Amino acid sequence: VSEPVVGGAGANGSTAPAPLVTVTACQLGPVLGEVAANLHKVEVAVALAAGAGAEVVVLPELVTTGYAFDSAQEARGLAEHVEGPSLRTIAALAAEHDLVIVGGFAELASGGEVYNSAFLVDRSGVRAVYRKAHLWADERRWFTPGSQPPAVVDTDRGRIGVLICYDLEFPEWTRLAALAGADLLCVPTNWPASSVPLDERPIEVVRAQATASVDRIFVAVCDRVGPERGTHWVGGSAVIGPDGYPLALAEAGGGPQTLLARCDLSLARDKSTSAVNNVVTDRRPELYGRITSA
Amino acid sequence: VSEPVVGGAGANGSTAPAPLVTVTACQLGPVLGEVAANLHKVEVAVALAAGAGAEVVVLPELVTTGYAFDSAQEARGLAEHVEGPSLRTIAALAAEHDLVIVGGFAELASGGEVYNSAFLVDRSGVRAVYRKAHLWADERRWFTPGSQPPAVVDTDRGRIGVLICYDLEFPEWTRLAALAGADLLCVPTNWPASSVPLDERPIEVVRAQATASVDRIFVAVCDRVGPERGTHWVGGSAVIGPDGYPLALAEAGGGPQTLLARCDLSLARDKSTSAVNNVVTDRRPELYGRITSA
Repeated sequence: VSEPVVGGAGANGSTAPAPLVTVTACQLGPVLGEVAANLHKVEVAVALAAGAGAEVVVLPELVTTGYAFDSAQEARGLAEHVEGPSLRTIAALAAEHDLVIVGGFAELASGGEVYNSAFLVDRSGVRAVYRKAHLWADERRWFTPGSQPPAVVDTDRGRIGVLICYDLEFPEWTRLAALAGADLLCVPTNWPASSVPLDERPIEVVRAQATASVDRIFVAVCDRVGPERGTHWVGGSAVIGPDGYPLALAEAGGGPQTLLARCDLSLARDKSTSAVNNVVTDRRPELYGRITSA
Repeated sequence: VSEPVVGGAGANGSTAPAPLVTVTACQLGPVLGEVAANLHKVEVAVALAAGAGAEVVVLPELVTTGYAFDSAQEARGLAEHVEGPSLRTIAALAAEHDLVIVGGFAELASGGEVYNSAFLVDRSGVRAVYRKAHLWADERRWFTPGSQPPAVVDTDRGRIGVLICYDLEFPEWTRLAALAGADLLCVPTNWPASSVPLDERPIEVVRAQATASVDRIFVAVCDRVGPERGTHWVGGSAVIGPDGYPLALAEAGGGPQTLLARCDLSLARDKSTSAVNNVVTDRRPELYGRITSA
């Protein structure tokens, strides 16, 4: 299950046509340690999104448990197996509403490691689990870093890439997802807030826009709200088109909210930017060697 | 001369302390084929910038010749050797005002190839020539693509990286400059205009912001104005800090103008983003292999 699906039919990925899909990000406020309450928030948000026409739903990072653990023991105590009750509940929601749902959870692996993971579920159940490879701050005190590339999964709502929060700050990582043919990158996120200059958009959103643009893919980031142990959040959820401009963007300083954008994913299969330019084939990989050595 | 200076003292590059420098971008309007007139515009802009305290001056791509050639013959007819009169004139300006100047020119190489190149000159003369590796649109009809990494040069105004326009859309390329220890990336640019949604910043500037942020470097982009053979330009010059926020930004739709920003380049030597995070050492190069294979 944790083995990402990659490669296939070349740079453009799937041979199935890319659909027009309604993508939603459900920005909400999980409460630390309150798994049942968090699953209830997820159920309500997903039902509202489905009622509004959602076909792909993105939820925040660690949406089932909250984020701001203060010990490895606390994180481990809240972690669940992929077959555990939280993912069963969310998979049932996906089946009930016929959705693809991507979100974050604390994963207890069969070997006993605890990962900051993301799931992709659809009506058939859990399709992929991705383990965050770039860990932020205290996360490395309780999570094992993942060592597999971003998940890229063929669904009937397009070819969907999954990575988590800080992973997005490594353009090498998002490029891997694009080269594996992702049409839409779903990014469960808990972005800690920092000061933003007047009239500027938070840099986290700016980086997500650049990602969409340089890879010509859709990017759907679902951030969170609700302070936890002194940490506040950007609340910067966004659905971004392959030209890098937002299709939907959370209100700055806003609370829980659902973003909704209609995405013609076929646009992400066309990597051309001029009569002769193409963001994939214009790369000069033979000159990039140093970035993969130390 | 065309061999870029790279590597040295590890990820943070130079062992010399990084200075506080005044960086300017002289956004101006070269006229196609009018080399003498363009050099005059450069002289005036550089003198104004120097009078305002400039220590590093960035000029547009192909500032000596203009951009919109319509044949290889026209480009070749305007191309000059590194030792030619245009770079002699600009090196004399650098010496007169004690500046580092980075800008673009059409280079006629000793082997007869024509490159879309950038120079870095200081009071000692031409310190580096960089040849654009990622060619945009018709450029490939008259220019040979470069095959050397971004130039990274130790100057007494900091360790300066140089690349050109479309190169900036490849995060692999800007990462190479950062890994070679660039404090400040100078980017001569001719950004063709495209439509920008209401209330959005041009995506070209957004990508430059993300570059600065993910590599924790200063980025100084000098764009141009003045339509040429039907091509209009973004006019999106910007000096951006290592947090990704602009320190100076050209007025949208504005004309020729000089941006000026005081840059504490030592900030670019500190790649940390939290008590334990660092944008260089948090990379997982051992997992990035696929981006350097086709």
